[in-house]
Amino acid sequence: MSQVYDRIALIGLGLIASSMFWAIKRSGLAGEVTGYARSEATRDAARRIGLCDRVCDTAREAVEGADLVVLCVPVGAMEAVATDIAPVLKPGATVTDVGSVKRHVIQAVSPHIPEGVHFVPAHPLAGTEHSGPEAGFAELYDNRWCLLVPVEGSDPDAIARLRALWEGMGANVDEMDADHHDLVLAVTSHAPHLIAYTMVGVADDLRRVTDTEVIKYSAAGFRDFTRIAASDPTMWRDVFLTNKDATLEILGRFTEELFALQRAIRTGDGEHLFDYFTRTRAIRRGIIDAGQDTDAPDFGRGKASS
Amino acid sequence: MSQVYDRIALIGLGLIASSMFWAIKRSGLAGEVTGYARSEATRDAARRIGLCDRVCDTAREAVEGADLVVLCVPVGAMEAVATDIAPVLKPGATVTDVGSVKRHVIQAVSPHIPEGVHFVPAHPLAGTEHSGPEAGFAELYDNRWCLLVPVEGSDPDAIARLRALWEGMGANVDEMDADHHDLVLAVTSHAPHLIAYTMVGVADDLRRVTDTEVIKYSAAGFRDFTRIAASDPTMWRDVFLTNKDATLEILGRFTEELFALQRAIRTGDGEHLFDYFTRTRAIRRGIIDAGQDTDAPDFGRGKASS
Repeated sequence: MSQVYDRIALIGLGLIASSMFWAIKRSGLAGEVTGYARSEATRDAARRIGLCDRVCDTAREAVEGADLVVLCVPVGAMEAVATDIAPVLKPGATVTDVGSVKRHVIQAVSPHIPEGVHFVPAHPLAGTEHSGPEAGFAELYDNRWCLLVPVEGSDPDAIARLRALWEGMGANVDEMDADHHDLVLAVTSHAPHLIAYTMVGVADDLRRVTDTEVIKYSAAGFRDFTRIAASDPTMWRDVFLTNKDATLEILGRFTEELFALQRAIRTGDGEHLFDYFTRTRAIRRGIIDAGQDTDAPDFGRGKASS
Repeated sequence: MSQVYDRIALIGLGLIASSMFWAIKRSGLAGEVTGYARSEATRDAARRIGLCDRVCDTAREAVEGADLVVLCVPVGAMEAVATDIAPVLKPGATVTDVGSVKRHVIQAVSPHIPEGVHFVPAHPLAGTEHSGPEAGFAELYDNRWCLLVPVEGSDPDAIARLRALWEGMGANVDEMDADHHDLVLAVTSHAPHLIAYTMVGVADDLRRVTDTEVIKYSAAGFRDFTRIAASDPTMWRDVFLTNKDATLEILGRFTEELFALQRAIRTGDGEHLFDYFTRTRAIRRGIIDAGQDTDAPDFGRGKASS
């Protein structure tokens, strides 16, 4: 794979940025990658493990001379970073981000982008329950989707170049407008995360069942909720606060459906339950066919932990 | 491992029974294993793949002379099977089951067990999204829990022997009373399954987001719900109808908590969200430490599907 940018600056050095670094290096997609994190401990960790060609003590220093600046901070911190780096952005450079919410980030960042600099928001749909600079690995984006969300007037060449970078890192790329992105993600990610957090919280609260029991017997289904309920609290707080409307809309529909199923249980309406459960199997089959999961029994977890 | 029973009869030949057969063979835990399934297609499939030493055309034929009879049918079908086989149960034999609900099964089966036959209900906490006679594999129970739920007057020797069988199949064994079992499972399994079914149904219903989008972008969190929402519809209908009270209790608490989090989103209470999300991380850590899951990033799914 050939170089796509001369210099890339990663602002924020968590799971997403560190995985980007290793994926960029794997395929030689950039001449130099600089990095900055607000916390000194994170910068020290990055230097220790060789994350980034150069770790800088200020965001401005990392950004200077970069062709691509990637904002990898929580959604709620995007505006402050954009304000800080705006004066040193190189003319012709592209600014992008990896935030899970797009309308809010566009509103927060766009006004600070100087004339002559491109802004192409993006969102890679990949993650693990781990966070921080040491959580990254080069394969995170392989066969995962990255959504580009161009704003009005986004330069086609800047979009094509960013697409080449994400494809070089192993991802499949789609384009989508911001409002549709925020709705699709509310369904596929934000509502499921809130629901998983809630269920794990309920289990923890229940006086008559101990945490030990919940943990020991988690393989019966509960376990599938805990991975996503272990995700980074700061990131997720910001997601819910900034994608409020779409998330609340989906949660409203979810509650309606849940009440209907609860009523079916209470009244003994087995047919309603059976039909509902039969319908949901097809979606699972679609996900396996689309290569977004494997159909290995139990995901091989049984074997891995035995 | 040495033989625990001379002859075991498996009634119902789905994922659980077929995995038991392979696990029993792996360690030589029985002299002969007979099997019966109501559907001719299932019996044919079993004969074709060598599932069971002898596949019988009636439950009574499979049960005759067995030291252990394992009822592996949906919870709602237990009583009919018990009624059918009762006359041919061997004196001194043990009847057990693998149902996900215990109070109901005990009420349905106990009255039909003849004097001189032991009844020791059980529930292995293991499964995959696949069902049917060809879904089984010998490792399913390795390092998983099997809960024994003895009824009043259960014979200690019969319990000890059944424990030895489950341990021989790789499981860890605990004992629990029926009502506590049903509550613990409502938290760790039944409520999570209903919630996952609901969320997958909502995604399928939403007009403004296509199924293709839901499937393509499922790796963002939704995917973790779809595995459990693909489980056998008949089995799960019966679970909810027969563990009604405990499931509805947990769902009630779940709804309360979900409303509190929705209100925090609506009012912008970031601190409430952050504190809640921080608390749930600890449970996940406990599950990994307990060996009921791995902490491999993304469970290696990224690699398996790339």
